[in-house]
Amino acid sequence: MTIPFDLSLYLVTDEQLAGPRGVVEAVGRAIEGGVTLVQLRDPKGKGRAQVEIAAALLQILRPRGIPLIINDRVDVALAVGADGVHVGQSDIPAAMVRRMIGPDKILGLSVSYASELTAPDLSVVDYIGVGPIYATATKTNAAPPIGFDGLAALAAASPVPVVAIGGVKAEHVVPALAAGAAGLAIVSAIIAADDPAAAAADFSTRIARFRAT
Amino acid sequence: MTIPFDLSLYLVTDEQLAGPRGVVEAVGRAIEGGVTLVQLRDPKGKGRAQVEIAAALLQILRPRGIPLIINDRVDVALAVGADGVHVGQSDIPAAMVRRMIGPDKILGLSVSYASELTAPDLSVVDYIGVGPIYATATKTNAAPPIGFDGLAALAAASPVPVVAIGGVKAEHVVPALAAGAAGLAIVSAIIAADDPAAAAADFSTRIARFRAT
Repeated sequence: MTIPFDLSLYLVTDEQLAGPRGVVEAVGRAIEGGVTLVQLRDPKGKGRAQVEIAAALLQILRPRGIPLIINDRVDVALAVGADGVHVGQSDIPAAMVRRMIGPDKILGLSVSYASELTAPDLSVVDYIGVGPIYATATKTNAAPPIGFDGLAALAAASPVPVVAIGGVKAEHVVPALAAGAAGLAIVSAIIAADDPAAAAADFSTRIARFRAT
Repeated sequence: MTIPFDLSLYLVTDEQLAGPRGVVEAVGRAIEGGVTLVQLRDPKGKGRAQVEIAAALLQILRPRGIPLIINDRVDVALAVGADGVHVGQSDIPAAMVRRMIGPDKILGLSVSYASELTAPDLSVVDYIGVGPIYATATKTNAAPPIGFDGLAALAAASPVPVVAIGGVKAEHVVPALAAGAAGLAIVSAIIAADDPAAAAADFSTRIARFRAT
């Protein structure tokens, strides 16, 4: 049984964008606004620093039942007992990650092209992150933007839930959910906001409003 | 029971220094010259690339009984079933790594200062890598060079075997072993050599000659 998770408002961290307040404080404020899932993404961070940040995030997320997912570093996830791992196409293959983390942890995979929806990966992942919807400065070497049409095509083809990522802002809640996404993965629009709680609440409200109609 | 290992001639890989022939071919040639241990070190390499190189290295090392150790990425080591892990002071703490890899795998730790010889680390590691002996271009952000006097002081204080690393060349075999090192960790002097087998054989011969006297 996989740990229960809700992709609706999926916050992805960024050390640089969090600014001087740091990732842990930015996340602490964002979860007041209704974040449903958090991914620690720190591609330049060393292992020890990632372990320390992940442990601090678990302390604030566990009491609220918000799962913590670690980007790329399966070892960091195992070291702190995080709730899951998210890998990209150039990270350790999903099947190997699944063997390391066991059947219950959450496993996500980044997908930009239909050709990346392959059987070995899809049989072991719990969701896919689809994008980039728009070009973004957060991720270097990202694939070209796929827009909401690309999102809709991948969401229709995917047997697992899809979260939209890449330059997504509050005004994109309706087109993303209408395209079939189960949620939105947000980096800068929340983590770099002056008021991360208000920014997250804006997304939450729009998501709830879309689902009520 | 820890996997048996011999620190005498410990080859550390470097993607850049291996040049166009690549790390796997360079290692394949070096082991003809008597390398006793290999560490895959690829701090800029993504997880999938590291898994592929590690798997290819295991194919050539296993038949010869030469252990393969992975630098930093415990997850890469677990994914391919490598023989051990080597971590630095800013990587995942040694005690956490030991819990992940279990009691039998080889665990090494980089140490530059006596203050880094701490009980929690030393109770779980099988050897320490001491250096840099000389300044080196291979590792950015390295500590200042400690020389053979620094090596001797740390070797005397360490309860586990010590391998000397950092700018070590064939002419340093005698002073390194005389300072109490169990072996030498070599990057450029072998991996960047025109003839890695001959370069490794030169080290091996000098090590054997020192021990015979």
